[in-house]
Amino acid sequence: DPSLKVFTLNSNKGLAEEIARHIGVSLGKNSVMRFSDGEVQINIEESIRGCDVYLIQSTSAPANEHLMELLIMIDAVKRASARTINVVIPYYGYARQDRKARAREPITAKLVANLLETAGATRVLTIDLHATQIQGFFDIPVDQLMGVPLLSDYFESKKLDDIVVVSPDHGGVVRARKMADRLKAPIAIIDKRRPKPNVSEVMNIVGNIEGKTAIIIDDIIDTAGTITLAANALVEQGATEVYACCTHPVLSGPAIERISNSKIKELVVTNTIALTEKQRGENITQLSVAGLMAEAIIRVHEDASVSTLFD
Amino acid sequence: DPSLKVFTLNSNKGLAEEIARHIGVSLGKNSVMRFSDGEVQINIEESIRGCDVYLIQSTSAPANEHLMELLIMIDAVKRASARTINVVIPYYGYARQDRKARAREPITAKLVANLLETAGATRVLTIDLHATQIQGFFDIPVDQLMGVPLLSDYFESKKLDDIVVVSPDHGGVVRARKMADRLKAPIAIIDKRRPKPNVSEVMNIVGNIEGKTAIIIDDIIDTAGTITLAANALVEQGATEVYACCTHPVLSGPAIERISNSKIKELVVTNTIALTEKQRGENITQLSVAGLMAEAIIRVHEDASVSTLFD
Ligand SMILES: Nc1ncnc2c1ncn2[C@@H]1O[C@H](COP(=O)(O)O)[C@@H](O)[C@H]1O
Ligand SMILES: Nc1ncnc2c1ncn2[C@@H]1O[C@H](COP(=O)(O)O)[C@@H](O)[C@H]1O
Repeated sequence: DPSLKVFTLNSNKGLAEEIARHIGVSLGKNSVMRFSDGEVQINIEESIRGCDVYLIQSTSAPANEHLMELLIMIDAVKRASARTINVVIPYYGYARQDRKARAREPITAKLVANLLETAGATRVLTIDLHATQIQGFFDIPVDQLMGVPLLSDYFESKKLDDIVVVSPDHGGVVRARKMADRLKAPIAIIDKRRPKPNVSEVMNIVGNIEGKTAIIIDDIIDTAGTITLAANALVEQGATEVYACCTHPVLSGPAIERISNSKIKELVVTNTIALTEKQRGENITQLSVAGLMAEAIIRVHEDASVSTLFD
Repeated sequence: DPSLKVFTLNSNKGLAEEIARHIGVSLGKNSVMRFSDGEVQINIEESIRGCDVYLIQSTSAPANEHLMELLIMIDAVKRASARTINVVIPYYGYARQDRKARAREPITAKLVANLLETAGATRVLTIDLHATQIQGFFDIPVDQLMGVPLLSDYFESKKLDDIVVVSPDHGGVVRARKMADRLKAPIAIIDKRRPKPNVSEVMNIVGNIEGKTAIIIDDIIDTAGTITLAANALVEQGATEVYACCTHPVLSGPAIERISNSKIKELVVTNTIALTEKQRGENITQLSVAGLMAEAIIRVHEDASVSTLFD
């Protein structure tokens, strides 16, 4: 279908190429460069008049650079008379700033939604928003894919014995439950508690993990503090092995060092965020969301439901 | 007046402090930091409910970082129930992307205007927009100050003999004319021409410069290619000395090296963009726009006209 055009920006070119291959198209021709002073210089090098354009860009670190590239590209696509502008944001940055946790804080996840719409986006496709409420920050359709099936299939293929799926906090229980259902396993929950002010946190585990293979699942692993403490607590309290997995490997600051020094046997992530050379050297398995995203793009383009992807 | 609050972000803290001092207020308390993954973390640390807030931030390099800081701060200020949100942008980045010079380019200067309004800005105060048309990109009031009076006063105080004010291109003639009027001097224009395709440009000078002290004026000096070629042509064709000046010292890439190796005796700029340590070591004189901006903020706050500042 010549009206379907897929373009990439700089955050995740490898993934974009894979998605285009799955769909059976070549990536659209555009240049995303910098002027001498660092301002983004974008040019679209083929006609897209009347086309349905899909822009693939995670707003991963450097989040501001990647977001501005995306906004400027949306502007260029709009002015080039595209029919629809579908932004494919595998990792939606600033998602954790989704509410005022303190007085006089911004709600940057909502700001970003407004900026994307103002620039001209007509639809959003993403995976595992940190909070599903972010869908409601948009007034355009948002389709959300899930990382759980992909991660579950991987662990299923490993044929591990006596699994327990562990949520690292109360906020992640629904996700852990979904994975547990797929793996036909029970769940456990890490119930972090500070017994008194100024006393360090205790990792209380709710559920039976003794003698089991634990798989901790989260949406984002950033500095890896929570997940490595959880892994160590699980082993201390009787788990035989601990795996960890997440959709979005942010892995900033001390993350890699903490993971290397932890009891985590293997970390399984997806490629919504490209790993650095150094991160790829570690015991990290990266699964590709390209097939899933390609399938979703095809369905969106055919006006079919994306949710059936999870049946 | 306790309802007037001035905040700064990270692009130009020195200027913001100077502006606050001129107005006679302390800078508002806010923190502008980064989370571990590089996302901007902003918190406003005093009540601004019902206040008229002035945010001082140039969208100078790194333009995307500075712009996002500003947008996120506007969001926080809006949610903290400020009465008005006045963004003071001494240097408006992306101003040169103000039209489609080629097919399928973005118009980023317009995009930025839309983003600022979407975030919640209610008024803009700036100096020397690269194109005055950018005022029309906004649907909120835009007050534009001029750098020419400040630059002219400096050269007047030097008591130079037999001045000619030079525009480095045809686009800058109006600006050169304004400075020439203030200095009671004639103007000249550099008329760059390519006699034939693939023949290098000739610096033709329109106007009499022989035996005169030339002052080249531009709004932005970025890589300094044009201005240093112009300076050298002026000396070759008979000017005794060449000064150069501009409002916005972008000075990226080879700029400093080119200026050092040129015939420019002194470069005079303003502090709409903070100079780096290295740039400050060069023969660059930096004039402060703080008094001008403070005066303009006071007038805006008192609902008085800013244009009378130039009478
Ligand atoms: N990029 C970030 N890195 C770390 N913490 C963040 C980031 N963005 C927002 N937050 C904070 O994370 C908290 C929300 O996280 P959560 O409770 O996991 O939804 C809020 O208090 C935010 O201030
Ligand atoms: N940051 C930048 N650095 C250099 N050139 C730019 C920049 N932004 C836009 N431009 C280009 O500058 C030209 C406009 O400059 P001007 O003719 O001086 O208004 C356009 O062709 C733009 O593509």
